[in-house]
Formats: sequence, structure tokens, C-alpha cells
Amino acid sequence: MLIKVINPNTTSSMTATIGDCARAVVGPGTVVDAVSPSMGPVSIESHVDEALSVPGILAEIARGEAAGVDGYVIACFGDPGIDAARELASGPVIGIAEAAMHAASFLGRGFSVVTTLARTIGRAQDLADHYGFGRQCLGIHACDLPVLDLETDPDARKIVTEACRIAVETDGSDAVVLGCAGMADLCRHISSEIGVPVVDGVAAGTLFVQSLVTLGLGTGKRGEFATPPPKLYTGMLEGFSRS
Amino acid sequence: MLIKVINPNTTSSMTATIGDCARAVVGPGTVVDAVSPSMGPVSIESHVDEALSVPGILAEIARGEAAGVDGYVIACFGDPGIDAARELASGPVIGIAEAAMHAASFLGRGFSVVTTLARTIGRAQDLADHYGFGRQCLGIHACDLPVLDLETDPDARKIVTEACRIAVETDGSDAVVLGCAGMADLCRHISSEIGVPVVDGVAAGTLFVQSLVTLGLGTGKRGEFATPPPKLYTGMLEGFSRS
Amino acid sequence: MLIKVINPNTTSSMTATIGDCARAVVGPGTVVDAVSPSMGPVSIESHVDEALSVPGILAEIARGEAAGVDGYVIACFGDPGIDAARELASGPVIGIAEAAMHAASFLGRGFSVVTTLARTIGRAQDLADHYGFGRQCLGIHACDLPVLDLETDPDARKIVTEACRIAVETDGSDAVVLGCAGMADLCRHISSEIGVPVVDGVAAGTLFVQSLVTLGLGTGKRGEFATPPPKLYTGMLEGFSRS
Amino acid sequence: MLIKVINPNTTSSMTATIGDCARAVVGPGTVVDAVSPSMGPVSIESHVDEALSVPGILAEIARGEAAGVDGYVIACFGDPGIDAARELASGPVIGIAEAAMHAASFLGRGFSVVTTLARTIGRAQDLADHYGFGRQCLGIHACDLPVLDLETDPDARKIVTEACRIAVETDGSDAVVLGCAGMADLCRHISSEIGVPVVDGVAAGTLFVQSLVTLGLGTGKRGEFATPPPKLYTGMLEGFSRS
Amino acid sequence: MLIKVINPNTTSSMTATIGDCARAVVGPGTVVDAVSPSMGPVSIESHVDEALSVPGILAEIARGEAAGVDGYVIACFGDPGIDAARELASGPVIGIAEAAMHAASFLGRGFSVVTTLARTIGRAQDLADHYGFGRQCLGIHACDLPVLDLETDPDARKIVTEACRIAVETDGSDAVVLGCAGMADLCRHISSEIGVPVVDGVAAGTLFVQSLVTLGLGTGKRGEFATPPPKLYTGMLEGFSRS
Amino acid sequence: MLIKVINPNTTSSMTATIGDCARAVVGPGTVVDAVSPSMGPVSIESHVDEALSVPGILAEIARGEAAGVDGYVIACFGDPGIDAARELASGPVIGIAEAAMHAASFLGRGFSVVTTLARTIGRAQDLADHYGFGRQCLGIHACDLPVLDLETDPDARKIVTEACRIAVETDGSDAVVLGCAGMADLCRHISSEIGVPVVDGVAAGTLFVQSLVTLGLGTGKRGEFATPPPKLYTGMLEGFSRS
Repeated sequence: MLIKVINPNTTSSMTATIGDCARAVVGPGTVVDAVSPSMGPVSIESHVDEALSVPGILAEIARGEAAGVDGYVIACFGDPGIDAARELASGPVIGIAEAAMHAASFLGRGFSVVTTLARTIGRAQDLADHYGFGRQCLGIHACDLPVLDLETDPDARKIVTEACRIAVETDGSDAVVLGCAGMADLCRHISSEIGVPVVDGVAAGTLFVQSLVTLGLGTGKRGEFATPPPKLYTGMLEGFSRS
Repeated sequence: MLIKVINPNTTSSMTATIGDCARAVVGPGTVVDAVSPSMGPVSIESHVDEALSVPGILAEIARGEAAGVDGYVIACFGDPGIDAARELASGPVIGIAEAAMHAASFLGRGFSVVTTLARTIGRAQDLADHYGFGRQCLGIHACDLPVLDLETDPDARKIVTEACRIAVETDGSDAVVLGCAGMADLCRHISSEIGVPVVDGVAAGTLFVQSLVTLGLGTGKRGEFATPPPKLYTGMLEGFSRS
Repeated sequence: MLIKVINPNTTSSMTATIGDCARAVVGPGTVVDAVSPSMGPVSIESHVDEALSVPGILAEIARGEAAGVDGYVIACFGDPGIDAARELASGPVIGIAEAAMHAASFLGRGFSVVTTLARTIGRAQDLADHYGFGRQCLGIHACDLPVLDLETDPDARKIVTEACRIAVETDGSDAVVLGCAGMADLCRHISSEIGVPVVDGVAAGTLFVQSLVTLGLGTGKRGEFATPPPKLYTGMLEGFSRS
Repeated sequence: MLIKVINPNTTSSMTATIGDCARAVVGPGTVVDAVSPSMGPVSIESHVDEALSVPGILAEIARGEAAGVDGYVIACFGDPGIDAARELASGPVIGIAEAAMHAASFLGRGFSVVTTLARTIGRAQDLADHYGFGRQCLGIHACDLPVLDLETDPDARKIVTEACRIAVETDGSDAVVLGCAGMADLCRHISSEIGVPVVDGVAAGTLFVQSLVTLGLGTGKRGEFATPPPKLYTGMLEGFSRS
Repeated sequence: MLIKVINPNTTSSMTATIGDCARAVVGPGTVVDAVSPSMGPVSIESHVDEALSVPGILAEIARGEAAGVDGYVIACFGDPGIDAARELASGPVIGIAEAAMHAASFLGRGFSVVTTLARTIGRAQDLADHYGFGRQCLGIHACDLPVLDLETDPDARKIVTEACRIAVETDGSDAVVLGCAGMADLCRHISSEIGVPVVDGVAAGTLFVQSLVTLGLGTGKRGEFATPPPKLYTGMLEGFSRS
Repeated sequence: MLIKVINPNTTSSMTATIGDCARAVVGPGTVVDAVSPSMGPVSIESHVDEALSVPGILAEIARGEAAGVDGYVIACFGDPGIDAARELASGPVIGIAEAAMHAASFLGRGFSVVTTLARTIGRAQDLADHYGFGRQCLGIHACDLPVLDLETDPDARKIVTEACRIAVETDGSDAVVLGCAGMADLCRHISSEIGVPVVDGVAAGTLFVQSLVTLGLGTGKRGEFATPPPKLYTGMLEGFSRS
């Protein structure tokens, strides 16, 4: 089974970490291909960044379909382009916010989300509502760390851990969802520090995709998510034209 | 990894089918223990049946904890006793309605549920709302087959398939959820007949539990789902007393 | 008119108090039969306790039907087994959480709930949402008293009163709902102390059942709540088999 | 105990029927005072009619407070002026739509409403949503009878009964709510014809008010529903000025 | 184009301010007619006041229809009588709470409302929910100023500004809605003080009505909001009878 | 005042029509600049098309900011990139689905949407829910016309009109929302044919932006929609890098 994990930003060190986290959990017959698109933002911290990451993601899905990929993980907590990706893919596509919220909802009544910059809280709330977790998502908390500082700030682990501790106390939650792919490797450390389950969407998303593929389940193709009609694109996007 | 799949009714042929469906999908390192409780209803087709299945389920969870079970699947579409089971278990517990609805929600915008008797529709609706899938669950349809007839009625497969076809057309759904553990083996047949993904909660639930255990995630134990305080039970339930 | 008030735990002193509270409010032609099941937990403080109280409740409903009972009150704030009880009863069945929330909703825009242990808050929230009072229920507050301490702790009245006062101030609520049958006799005292209406579900539930019976209204029996089909139960539950 | 039942329209034959329905169900110690305001519409079939019925209702509440009334029923299915009435009353105030929906919600999972003219459906939907019964209210059906024809059209009973039968079949509901005070006397006939509980809000509202008064519960007066500050009214409304 | 702005209270100085605010924003071809009804409360600070303002509003709408008015603004933050007004008007009718919430929802994810007395918070919440802005309305805050003090209290501007500042900080909102027509002239001052957009419903409502009239859009007249059937009114309301 | 109306597809004849519809309604002091991005799809009929239209939209917003544009309309019924556009713009940004739904909600209780291809229904539903119109949006209907056929199919006007008529009858709605910018010029014709208000989002959006600019209101810039932090983009998107 071949699962493609797409880091929608172009920072390759983050892609490497994400790939490692995914590979650490899959079964023996599963191959993980972790990639960054060839175009896109160096990190995703705004609606603009997220929107501009989507063409690159879709190009990777198209390439994946040609290569026989069985399923996809979109490894940015805003789940950018997920509906469009589902139109192009025949197998399952899962976003890491989606995966992490689903996983957390199995573990108790409610979860907290801990994210990077405060300006991303709105998007996380939209996703929680959209996926049906408006009631289970008890709070979304920013730790005011830019995405790329997660890799470089020596205090990052401490800051995120502290934000998780406060989130759990404030919200009375049963679990924590880490709101950035760049936090994927902090999971077990924080869980052992604060005593509640902590969910990373990269690993969860990879295993849920593996589960769906094992079950023979892919995106429903009879209506909204059928392969889109052929289309002419112009300008910088001409490479996307289909006929 | 040891996953216990509990068929809450006492019909052992159904337990065998359920066990086979679970074993067919797990990874090489995972052992599935499929059991029926020693007490309970021969099939579950009413709120009364469901309520009376719970003591047997809880006894199996308690026995599983003593035996080092890593996670549990409750294999009845009403997800009976799931909150109580989560209090007793340290690992994850997933119900098959919960699992199937989560799986289906990954596959498109909305799903239909096809269940046995019409009187179980209300419970399915409650669960969809409770888990957050009120918007994704586009319709719940009965095929008017008693649970045990699924095994004996020669037309069962045809009847369920037809009900699924009608459900998808009526609801405009992207996927179908089978609303009874006794339908677990019909999945791929129906999917190939009607051309949309068809989800069986037994297999889905088993793989989601396997995923959570692999991720090191269990039920959150800091509040509502902490091990309950010791308690004296009297009457037929004395065996449950804890101190 | 004969109303059966079922205290789902087996503590007879609490059953006596509950019976007194119900008898104090009914009309001259109404007889209240307050009972404890012969099996069940000594108090209900967890999902497990609640689940294990249900077989005893259902046995009492079945016995009540044979004895010509006109309506039932389930006197535990988790409203355990209410759907199953409605299947067995021809007259109305009301839970005390349900009754208290309905009563409080007549008194203003929103109410607070004050319950015993924090771990029961989740169940109260589920019930509020299920009954449609998600908007009216402005907060659920625990006073950290185990159920049986309500009868023995000399400070219990003071502790509950104080929790009610804080709840009203925090939530800006128009009324308070007492979240445990064991608080039934505290109602008027607290109301006079804090100056807002305080609702006890035992008395409210008894009068609402009396009202429905007077109106000739019982559980709708055309679908989900029709008498369940005959069923074989095995193990400790054999006494429940119907044919 | 003195309960004032206010028929907000000025048709005295309807007030008489409403009074009879209320008196038929109250306890021996309860007196029912059924009145029509001295100003208002001859029947209520639009938002305009409803709005113009409110000053008369409020005048009756003010008069009732002076006369020591214990509680009030507003006997028009739009529950006109209920928030304003609660500000003026110290005892409980219940509208008949409110009462009927609460009563019906005790009887199963969902109810249908059968009303007079189609143009009143929107208001009924608003009330169902406002009271929290958006999920339980499975359908609202008009039988296209003007309010006053309920008393004079010889086919009225048949027309309403047929509308109820269709509503129950279409919605799969467990109970029917009659959506007009003018239908109050049709209740038992329809119920026996169609085999599901049928709820009239006049009788239900009267018994719920009686229940609340018995419990010592009135409108919460600490905030929104406190007696309004004194106010100068001019024009035709000068009679309402308070100081 | 003729737009009638109805100040539902009878305080003419407030009507003058409201008219000025409306006239300041309309296009060159638009005439604003700002009026107070000849009957009603001197200010609106309770459900009673609001209910008693409605007959006067409806009389003004009826007069406006005779005079060829193109559209209406109801300039009280409770949007009193809006459904009834829509039945009488052929052009559009907008309330200032409705207008302000719509305007604010265009400006970001969420807004705060700052109103006068705390007892009006409930009505504002009802309107937010009714119009669909339950999620966008992040908080409703009272500044404890009676309506008429807005004109006379020398500290009014400071008090309202401070309440807005606190609201934005508490709620994390992107915009503020002023919850009283009497605050219409404070808008730009507060916005420049606190650095977020501040919306006055009088100006917003006037421009939205102007927009709808320009688009040729009026109230839908095929069902609920069709002109009501003729009706006899008695008592002080006889002037309203239609035939 | 300068309003930029962005047609996110690259079909210039449609841009011309859209510009005409916008210009036909603005005030004398308002200039409308109708543009197509230099890159993007020839029409938008899928999630993929919509996603790939966003970079072009954002480039037009950035160019507009440099040119002193006062406000923007995004003239595709999926409102693509609206959150990202709001981050870049200081003035207001409104999507045509957003505008049309807001306008329709002023005209009665509920509206129907009539769109092009069935596969776009899901996106329209998402937007209705996101904007808070889940209750007002009574149905979304496809007329199975590809977007570009709206200009070329001689039966297009008839097909869309018929779909509107059926929608209104099926849903019992008070107004119709046209679900494609390419239908902008059909508005008045359909309205006169079917007798309910018909809303085109292009004209509505343009007037709502004009209204907000007149009121001095722009996007709230204190949090989520503040100008995004500088960012490096690579690949085909390098032109978007900011520093």
C-alpha cells in the first residue's frame, strides 16, 4: 500500500519530520511517500498562505494518481484544498485537522486544540464545525509561536507543553489535539507531562488512510466528488488544464 | 496487540461472523478476541434489548482489563454502554455505529444508514447527532428484516442491497453505512452492486481501535471517564460490586 | 390515579425522601408508590452505575404494568433507561432531569444545573442537548458531594446552597435545577436563600406525569416505542425473557 | 388556586370553549378564569393579528396581578406577548404552543403540528425552534381552515382529523399537537380515530401552570423578567403608563 | 426613492438624531422620512415596552403604504413587529438589529453587541439566533445606561466607548454592533478610539433598504407575508380594522 | 468610490455581463471596475476549479489595494478565497453567494437557491451553513446547465426560470437566489414570471459593498484578518512573495 503524505509548505526539514512520524506508525506492508509541492509558501500562517498552498497540493494529488497512490494525507492543520483533492483522488484523502479531531473524539467527551498563531484559531473553529465537532471541540488555544520557530526555538517544546496544560485545565477536556504538522513529534512528550492523551494528526491521518484503504474504501464518486469535467486554465496555472 | 470485539447479543454464529470480519482486516501483530457475553438478549432490536445487553458488555470489559486487552469494539449498531465501557477501559473503546459514521464521513459530504427494523431508526439518529454527524447523516432507512433473519433469510442479501440502492438515490449520498453487525459480511458485495463505498462498522471499528493503540492513545482518564468510585451492587448484579 | 416513582438506587432512606417529596404535591386522587429496585447500585455516580441501574428499573416498570400503574417517574438525574422504559409502559414515563429542565424552561430564558460530582456533568449536558435545552441550560456546576453524603454530611445544605448562588451569578440564569434526586427536599430552602426559583425534578416529574395522565396522554405506541418483540435473554437476565 | 386563561381574540364563544377545556382538567382546589381582552382581533391568523392582540393580553395580566391570580395561560397557538407577560406576572405564564410542544415531547421522539392556515406555519416553526424542539417537531401541517370556521364548518372535525392522520404518516411522528386553541375540544376524538396521542395546549398549559404553582415556582425575577421600569405611554396606549 | 425610518418610541429628539444619521448616508435620489408613532412608549427598555410599541409601528407602515413609501427601517434594536410590518409592506422592511448584525458579519468572523440595560440582552440574543448569527455574535454586553440617558448623561459617550473596548477584548471580535438607535451618532468616534469597525444599525438599515429597492426587491408575498386577511379589531384598536 | 468586481473565471464575455449588472445599480459617485484574473479556469464548476481560481483573485485584490480600490465583490457563487481576500483588503470584500443570501434573508422566512450543475450543490450548502443561513436556505436546486451554456444555450433562460418555479413550489420559499454569476441578467425576467423576488448576487454584492464603504466600514483588522506576515512563495507562485 502506498500512502502519500503531502506537506503543503515548501520547508523540507518539516517534510522530513512529518514523513518520519507517519512511517513510525504504519503497518509492514505500507510505504509512506512524504513530499512538499514544488510551489507554495514556506510556511502556512494565514488564509492567504493556505489558499496559495492549494495548487501545489493538487499537482501532487494528480501526480499521485498517475503513480498509483492508494491514499493521501494533507499535512497542514487547515486541511487546505481537501474537497478539491477528493475530486481528483480515487482513494481516500484525509486532512490532519480532520484526522486529529476524529481521533480525539474517540477518547472522551471533548478535546482542546493547541495551535501556533492566534490568527489561525478561526480556521480551526471552522473546521471543527464543518466536520461536526462543534460540541466536542471545547477550546482552541494559540501558543503564539510562528510555525518555523517550532523547529528552531529551543523553548518550543516547553511553550507548547505549557499551552496544552493550560488548555486542558481551562476547558476540562479529555484530550489535546496539536494544531500544526510541525508539532507532530511532540505528542508523547506532552502526553506524559500533562497526563491526557495528545493527538498528532499526521500519524492519526496516516493510520486512518491505511485503515480505509485496507477496508477497500475510497472517496464516493457518484456526485459532488466525481472527477471534475475537463477544463482550460490560463496564466500561471496552464499546467493544470485537463481535457 | 490484543483487541476484544464484543458482540453484545448471545447468538454465537453472529459472533463468529463478526470475529471473521475483524480478523480479515487487522495487521499481522494484532490478535482479535471475538466474544459474546454470558448474559444478554439473543438479538438487539429495541431499547429494552439494548439496555439489557449492557451488563454483559461491562462484564466483558472488566474481564478484558484483567487480561491486558489493548482496546475494544462494541459490535452492535446502537453502541450500547459505550460511556460506561470507557470508564472501565484504559485503552480505547469504539462502537460500530461510531466507527462506521466516522469512516463514512471521510468519504464525501454525506452518507445514508441502512438498518434492520424501523423501530431502531430513532437510536441511529440519536447516535448520529451525538457523535456530531447530524449534517452528514442524510437519511436512515429500514429494510424491515429482523436481525437474526440476516443469517437465515435467503433473500437477505438482496433485500439489504436494494435498500442501500434506494437510500443512495433518495438521499444523494456519497456512501452507505450498514446499520447492523449482522450485515458485516455484505459490504463489498453491496458496494460493487451499487457503485458507492459501503461501510461496515465491525471492520472499521477494529481498524480504528488498532490505529489508536498504535498511536499510544487511550480513553482520557482525568475526569468523566476516570475509573468509577467503588460501589456496592445488590440483587442479580452483585457480581459487579467493586471496592 | 397510581403513579410509580422509581428511585433507581437501592438506598431505601433516599427512596423514602423521594416518596415524601412526590406525595407532598400530588392531587387528592393520586397515589404515589415510591420504590427501589431489588437489584442495582447503592448510589449512581458514574456511567457504569447508571447502566447497571437499568435492569432493575425495567423490572419495576414491568411489575407496574401488571399492577395497572398509570404513569412513572424515574428518580435519578441521569434519566437512566428512559427510552427502554417507554417501550414497556403504556402510560407516560418522565425522568427527573427531563422534568426539571422542562419546568425551569417555563420560568425564564435560562437555567443553571447544580449536581453532585463533577464526573456527572457530561451526562447532564447530554440530556440537556437531547431534550432540546442546549440553549436554555446556561451552565452545569458540581458541588463535589458524593450522592450519599447529601443525607449524612451536616454541611450538605450549605454546600449545595452556595453552589446554587455561584451558579446563578456566573450564568446569569433565571432558575436553578437541582441535579440529584437526593436534593429533592432542599428546594424551597435554597430558593428563599438565593431569590430565584429552584426546581426539584422529583416533584416536577410527579406533577407532569399526573398532568399527562389527567389529559389521557401516554407514550406514543405506533413506532419506536411500541412494545418490543418477544425476546430470549440468557444468563443473569433470564428473568426478563418475554414471548 | 386561581388560573387565568386568556383567549387573546375577542370571540366569546371560543373563550367559552377554552374555559370548559381548562376547567375539565384542573384539580378540585383550582379555579379557572377564562377571559377575552376588551381590545384585539376577532381571530388571530397573521403576524399583524398576533401583534395587535398583545396590548389586550398585557392589560389582562396587569388586571390579574391586581386580583391575585396565581398563574396564566395564553390561549393562542402563537404564544403572543409571552415574554412581556412574564415581565408583568409574578406567577408562571405559559403559552399553549409552548405547553403542547412540551407535553408532546414527553410522549416519544417526535411530534407533528396541525394548524389552521398555511401562513401560520412560519410562526409555529419559530416557536418550536425557540423552545428547543427543532429536532422533535417533525412537521407542521395546515388544514386550510380559517380559525372561526372551526366552530361553524360542519366538516371541521373531519378535516382536522384527516390532516392529523396524514401528518402522522408523513412525519413518522409519535404524537400530534393541535395548533389552534379553537381545536381544544377535538383532542380525544382525533386521538381515538388515528391511534396516537393528540395534545391540546389549552388543557396541557392549564395543568402545567397548576403544577408550577403547586411547586411554588413562578417566573424568575432577577434579570430579564423583572418588573419593567416605570414608563410613559402616549396615544391610544396611555392606559398602560406606569410610574 | 422614499424610505421611512420609524423610531418606535415617542421621544422626538431621538427621532431627529435618527433621521439625521439616515439622511447622512443615502444617495442623492433618496428621501428619508423619519417619524415617531403617535402612540407608544417614551423609550423601549423591556419586552412590555417593545410589545406596546408595535401598534404604533404598524399604523405608520399602513400610512406609509398609502403614501407610496418604497421601504422601511424599524429603528429600535429589538426589531419590534418586524414580521407584522412585512405583512403590511410591499417594499422591504429591515430592523436595525438585523441590519447591524448583517453588516458586521461582512467584516470578519465575529462581532460583539454593546447595548443599554442588561435586561435587553436576552432579546438581542434571540434576534442574533433568529437571523442566523448565533455563531458570529460572540458576546452581548450592557453598559447599564437607560436609553434616554444616552442623550443627557455627559459621560454617555465615554461609558459606551469603554464598554465597546472591553467587549472587543473579551470576545476577540472583529467588529462592534451598537445595540440602540440612540447610539447612532457615536459610531465613528468609538471606531476611531478602539480601532475596530463599529456598526450603527440605523445607517446600515437605511442603506440596505435603499439597496434592496434599487434592486427591485421587496418582501415575498406568496405565503406567510402576504397581505393579511381582513379583520375586525375591537376596543382601543378599532382603528386597525380592515375589510 | 471605486468598487472592483472580480469575475474569478477567465471568460471575458461573462466579465462584461457582470460589469454591466453591477454598473446598472450603483450610485452616481461609484465607479465599477469589472475584471478577470490573468490566470484561472475558463469556468468554475468543481472544487478544483474553485481552488485554482483563488491565486488569480488574490493577485487582483493585491493590485486593487495598490490602486486604492474601496471595496471588492468576488463574483463566483462559491465565494472562492474570500477569507484570504479579506486579509489582503482594507475595505470590505463580499462574495456573491454571501450577498445574495443576505439579501434574500431580508425578504421573508426562507429562500431557494437555483444553481448550475448538481455537483456544486454541496458547496452552496456549506456557504449557507457558514454564513448562518442554514435555517433560511430551504433548498438548493440544480438546473443541469454548464456555466458557459448560460450564454450560448438558447433555452437557458427558460430552463433556469422553470427550475426557479419548481424550487419555490417545492420549498415553499419567499425568494429565489440565483446560484451563478452567469445568471446575473436573468433576475427581473424570472421574478416577473414566477411572482417572487429573485436575487442576483452580483448586483446585491455591489450595492452592499457600496453601502459598507459609505458607512466607513471595512474588514476588521485586529486579529484573524490582519495583513498576513511576510512570506516566501516558491514555484509558479513566486510572484506572490511578500516581505
